[in-house]
Amino acid sequence: MQLIDEIIVPCCLLGLLAALAQFLVIRGIKLTPDGKDSLSTGLTAGGSEQAAKLVPEIYEKIMTGAVQFLKVEYAICTAFCLAFAVLISALVSWGTKSPLQGHLTAGAFLTGAFTSMLCGFLGMMVATYSNARTTLACAYSGYTLGFNTAFRGGSVMGYALCSLGVLILWALLSFYRTIYPDADDWEILFDCAAGYGLGGSTVAMFGRVGGGIYTKAADVGADLVGKVVAGLDEDDPNNPATIADNVGDNVGDIAGMGADLFGSFAESTCAALVIAAAAVEGSHNTLADAGWNAMLFPLAISAAGIVICILCGFVATNISPVRDEPDIERVLKVQMVLTAILMLPVIYYMAIVLLPAEFRLEGVRLTEDGHPAKITGSPFKCFICATMGCVGGLIIGLVTEYFTSHTYVPTRELASACKFGTAVNIIQGLALGYKSCIVPVFVLSSAIYVSFQLCDLYGIALAALGMLATLACGLTIDGFGPISDNAGGIAEMALFGPEVRRRTDALDAAGNTTAAIGKGFAIGSAALVSLALYGAFVVRLRVKTGVNILEPVTFAFLIIGCMVPYWFAALTMKSVGKAAGEMVAEVKRQFSVKDSQGKTLLDGSTELKPDSLTCIQISTQASLVEMVAPACLVILSPLLAGTFFGVQAVFGLLTGSLGSSVQLAISMSNSGGAWDNCKKFIKNGFSDDPELRYTKNPKTAEEVKAAPKAKEAHDAAVQGDTVGDPFKDTSGPALNIVMKLQAIVSLVFAAYFAAINHGHGFLGQAAL
Amino acid sequence: MQLIDEIIVPCCLLGLLAALAQFLVIRGIKLTPDGKDSLSTGLTAGGSEQAAKLVPEIYEKIMTGAVQFLKVEYAICTAFCLAFAVLISALVSWGTKSPLQGHLTAGAFLTGAFTSMLCGFLGMMVATYSNARTTLACAYSGYTLGFNTAFRGGSVMGYALCSLGVLILWALLSFYRTIYPDADDWEILFDCAAGYGLGGSTVAMFGRVGGGIYTKAADVGADLVGKVVAGLDEDDPNNPATIADNVGDNVGDIAGMGADLFGSFAESTCAALVIAAAAVEGSHNTLADAGWNAMLFPLAISAAGIVICILCGFVATNISPVRDEPDIERVLKVQMVLTAILMLPVIYYMAIVLLPAEFRLEGVRLTEDGHPAKITGSPFKCFICATMGCVGGLIIGLVTEYFTSHTYVPTRELASACKFGTAVNIIQGLALGYKSCIVPVFVLSSAIYVSFQLCDLYGIALAALGMLATLACGLTIDGFGPISDNAGGIAEMALFGPEVRRRTDALDAAGNTTAAIGKGFAIGSAALVSLALYGAFVVRLRVKTGVNILEPVTFAFLIIGCMVPYWFAALTMKSVGKAAGEMVAEVKRQFSVKDSQGKTLLDGSTELKPDSLTCIQISTQASLVEMVAPACLVILSPLLAGTFFGVQAVFGLLTGSLGSSVQLAISMSNSGGAWDNCKKFIKNGFSDDPELRYTKNPKTAEEVKAAPKAKEAHDAAVQGDTVGDPFKDTSGPALNIVMKLQAIVSLVFAAYFAAINHGHGFLGQAAL
Repeated sequence: MQLIDEIIVPCCLLGLLAALAQFLVIRGIKLTPDGKDSLSTGLTAGGSEQAAKLVPEIYEKIMTGAVQFLKVEYAICTAFCLAFAVLISALVSWGTKSPLQGHLTAGAFLTGAFTSMLCGFLGMMVATYSNARTTLACAYSGYTLGFNTAFRGGSVMGYALCSLGVLILWALLSFYRTIYPDADDWEILFDCAAGYGLGGSTVAMFGRVGGGIYTKAADVGADLVGKVVAGLDEDDPNNPATIADNVGDNVGDIAGMGADLFGSFAESTCAALVIAAAAVEGSHNTLADAGWNAMLFPLAISAAGIVICILCGFVATNISPVRDEPDIERVLKVQMVLTAILMLPVIYYMAIVLLPAEFRLEGVRLTEDGHPAKITGSPFKCFICATMGCVGGLIIGLVTEYFTSHTYVPTRELASACKFGTAVNIIQGLALGYKSCIVPVFVLSSAIYVSFQLCDLYGIALAALGMLATLACGLTIDGFGPISDNAGGIAEMALFGPEVRRRTDALDAAGNTTAAIGKGFAIGSAALVSLALYGAFVVRLRVKTGVNILEPVTFAFLIIGCMVPYWFAALTMKSVGKAAGEMVAEVKRQFSVKDSQGKTLLDGSTELKPDSLTCIQISTQASLVEMVAPACLVILSPLLAGTFFGVQAVFGLLTGSLGSSVQLAISMSNSGGAWDNCKKFIKNGFSDDPELRYTKNPKTAEEVKAAPKAKEAHDAAVQGDTVGDPFKDTSGPALNIVMKLQAIVSLVFAAYFAAINHGHGFLGQAAL
Repeated sequence: MQLIDEIIVPCCLLGLLAALAQFLVIRGIKLTPDGKDSLSTGLTAGGSEQAAKLVPEIYEKIMTGAVQFLKVEYAICTAFCLAFAVLISALVSWGTKSPLQGHLTAGAFLTGAFTSMLCGFLGMMVATYSNARTTLACAYSGYTLGFNTAFRGGSVMGYALCSLGVLILWALLSFYRTIYPDADDWEILFDCAAGYGLGGSTVAMFGRVGGGIYTKAADVGADLVGKVVAGLDEDDPNNPATIADNVGDNVGDIAGMGADLFGSFAESTCAALVIAAAAVEGSHNTLADAGWNAMLFPLAISAAGIVICILCGFVATNISPVRDEPDIERVLKVQMVLTAILMLPVIYYMAIVLLPAEFRLEGVRLTEDGHPAKITGSPFKCFICATMGCVGGLIIGLVTEYFTSHTYVPTRELASACKFGTAVNIIQGLALGYKSCIVPVFVLSSAIYVSFQLCDLYGIALAALGMLATLACGLTIDGFGPISDNAGGIAEMALFGPEVRRRTDALDAAGNTTAAIGKGFAIGSAALVSLALYGAFVVRLRVKTGVNILEPVTFAFLIIGCMVPYWFAALTMKSVGKAAGEMVAEVKRQFSVKDSQGKTLLDGSTELKPDSLTCIQISTQASLVEMVAPACLVILSPLLAGTFFGVQAVFGLLTGSLGSSVQLAISMSNSGGAWDNCKKFIKNGFSDDPELRYTKNPKTAEEVKAAPKAKEAHDAAVQGDTVGDPFKDTSGPALNIVMKLQAIVSLVFAAYFAAINHGHGFLGQAAL
């Protein structure tokens, strides 16, 4: 075993162990009270026997719905991946003239895809498992246990996903090394391994898009029916779409987000490896010369990150736990900042230990006279690159929070805009999203500029890895949100009192903010990852003259690339609208059915039960049908461009798509987040302005006077929230995958493109 | 006089003459009846004496408001332009080390700016002049005269603007030629002349942004108060914001749009001239060798276009005039198609006559081994390039119509979405806008690809000119819209009967659709123009190694460039929201004032009069204050990038901004247009579905039953329309100017950038 193996394997095993341990702790909370522990004593003593009966029932339904969805989704995914693997194998074999290389690439692709599915499945199971237990913990113990349960649920996914991702990739690489033991062949080796990233990303596309459409079809549908049509509360047990909404949180935010970030991790690692392997100066690769340890440095960062996150996790659950409502957001934010800070010395140490004191590479950037610039790398420079990513990610996260949390000015101003009605709320919300691009883009640009200058594209890949180094923590916090959200839903449906609901709401609110932060991270890292992949593609093609954007075909495709995210967003948003419409129709149908007494569900019929299964099926069906077109758009666009117009067209496409996706993703996510929190701000009565304090039962004279206006503002806010739903949970975050997936498809098919008409594509010679 | 002068001067003079003639025809319609002609006989015979009294009064108010706004706006513009001229003179003198060149550039800049202001002012005066007369024509004569009056009003602006633009530029060039008679100095000459484009574009920025904010602050304000708060009709005479709304149509859609397109024309011509002058092969400029005729070929296209448009104008007003409602849209569309078709042989003829049989230039695109490609141009190739633009523009226009007119599926589907409420309408409307980018982008890409391949950047400039060749017709149709809109407003305020209103509405509806087409044209041409300018900038800098997008600073600024349009949109949308809020507050104040009888304006007080002047002042104030920040963002961004980070940063900025602006501009304009027409579709009862047929007084049993649902759908549509207002009339179309202005600023300051640290910028040597 080499040094690198001694770092990676123990770290990953520790991660898996920690995940298991957390799971066992959650398992300690019994859903059905047996009177043997303090919790169930509380449960029975609390007298909420109805709740005690309802919780396992609801839990069952959510679990069934989630599993049902994932089964069908993964069946489709598997079929697609198998077919795609055949295509990969065929085209790569043809392009490289080496069937072995084609098979290995396809093998790596399938490994990545199945790892991603496994992680998504695990994460979702654990999250669903933790939902009801978080509700119970909130009901019978308080903030500390409630928070810890949701946090642990998230961390099981975080630790397991990261550990499995790193470990399986490590195993794959070690296996491929037995086939290509010679350092001169490592370029081929890592080319093949890039399939792993493509696999992760392909599944992520389906997860994000399918899950995103599912969750928002259910959510928008439930909102429309519940709030607008029949005047019900969110999560009203009579609303048959509610369960589907809760399932949606799990399949969209847990499985989808997990797959997305797993994809980012896998791709940035692959990008770094491909670049490192192809970073020759003349015919000499100084990094490969330094050996396997140096090559696998990127994996070491990720592995070490897991341990850091596990250690920091104790701070949240044990050392400085949540005691009351205001602690929640602080504890989560401390996690983010702490892991990022602790990560830095670790990265530095890893760089010193694993990398050679100096390595040289030829850049994609050019010298004045048009030749590739020669760059000298060092451990310290690599450390700076990773730091740019790590700190940049943190800043992007915090800016995202500033724009979307109702603690700060932007969302509060948005709430004031609600006084002027829905239209003004929408206009200002969109403007807020647009505005929120400014700082993250400057941060990203700085990170790109500095790391690109220091270590050329390898630096970009390291910056991406640095941003994802604390992924386990990010995933924990991401998982925390939907678990709390679901816990709140269950509390409502199980008819718990307002006190319990207040606790779950507090968890949910903090989770919402941190989810927005997580989305900021995801977008930022996606931008760096796709640039790194794009660069790897260029390096891989051995382009020595740079990418001239003022090439006719390149510029033409640049504009097309800029358009692809819009096309994609149009497809996904239309799908949500369509599916939500179907959902509304179904719920209306259920509400119109009368029982033998002539009563409907809404009149409190005792015979009728809300048929949540049909709603779940509608969401499942709609999302799975609708995810195909967007996925094909993303995967086929670089393939077609490269096949027919050559690699220069692909360069343009990737450039445009990257630049455009970043903005659209940030603005959509943040508009949506702000609308959501703006609604919460008004609904929960946090405002000093009585006209923005919505309450169903106004008490003081001031409140009574302001009540009609507050109602108007609240209605406007609800409309904004509904518009924001597909923005923040379907189209916005899925745009991450657009840019990453297009880039990695290009990278994996690089040899194939290069083989067609010398990289000019089939139509390339038809120059006018 | 040379051949080229013999083409340009007569064409332009003919254009001015035609404008004058049309104006005299409009003038024939008397506002105050004197009993001497048939119209005024009709007026007095019609018995609408009240209307006869009210029309001149309202006309006065609109005219006063418009003049008041333009005066203040142009005062600010003039101050800004003078200051900017000093800066230009200083920096260009410093960069070129030739004060003469600095002064000439600044002179051209001021000439362009004042031409633009003159044209805007003329256009707006004529439009305002034609509004009331169109109402009267509709009232007392019918569709033919009503249409012709609005059409003539638009054409006065169209012919005058194009003629003045070409003529003044021609005079400027002829004058500069006396300073630089030698063909070897023409590169300097046309560099200086590029200031003309910058001047036009700078004023356009203020016009578009100031006018856009003005018009939408008034419109959104009037809508919010009128429709939502007090339940008034649009253009209700009691609503004090209505006059401001009507003024807004003139300052935004007429003066703003006119300045925008004038800017496009001036810039594309300048781009073509600069490229032609710098298009050397070795040290040899084969185009300049062919003489002044060949150099000024781009101007000849524009001049000839004026004549074509005048001829085609007769088709609309005399040969095949409008007789009934369905004719209107047809006649306008025939204009567009006819001018485009007739233009083609004229372009071909001009190319044959003026251009040398063959000319050679070095491209910005590179050969395989990284050297500038050698391109051979010919009249036929140039003709194809211009044709790509001309036909491409037409296709983009028609696609825009497809997406925004309620004759077609997309807007009808949007109307159906209104059944599910505001949120779904907004989601689907945004998706529609995103989707509407697809075809125009493919058309643009094809035009870019083909013309770039054929004649390199000169081809792009020619494609832009081809798209703008029928500008006079485009402007006529653009002017037609707001004139009809205002005519409708006046009809409402002057208490004309429903029959008159129906006629003006029919004109307005056709005008709306064609305005959307015009916006499509404007965006398409802006994209080509800014690419041409960007190319001219690169050519001007004599960059021989292409623009390597994978340069650290270039890529970093690419992302920033992609963000600028979002930033800009955020600023302008926020401004509209803010200004509309102020307007609402003022109107509410007026509505709450009670007269001596205790009656308010809404109760029909006879003592109180709506104070429209204050509303106009609020809109004026708000728009002028708010236009500064967006304008500075656009002008300063390339200046700062170039000053501190060098020309490579500017390359990135321009690339990103161009790609991103196109999408955002198209999607915003089309979403807005579709929402507007969706509202009209429901409001005017065009649907077969009674639930989408809004009527205040339902008659049939079916209508009565569907009335509540129709009301709901209508309300949702109104909200969508309000959201769309700043989209389609403020932010969306102003994005045209973002891309153009950034590019021309870069071009004019090229020598200055190049002089700083060898083009690396002040911070450029701080490479890490």
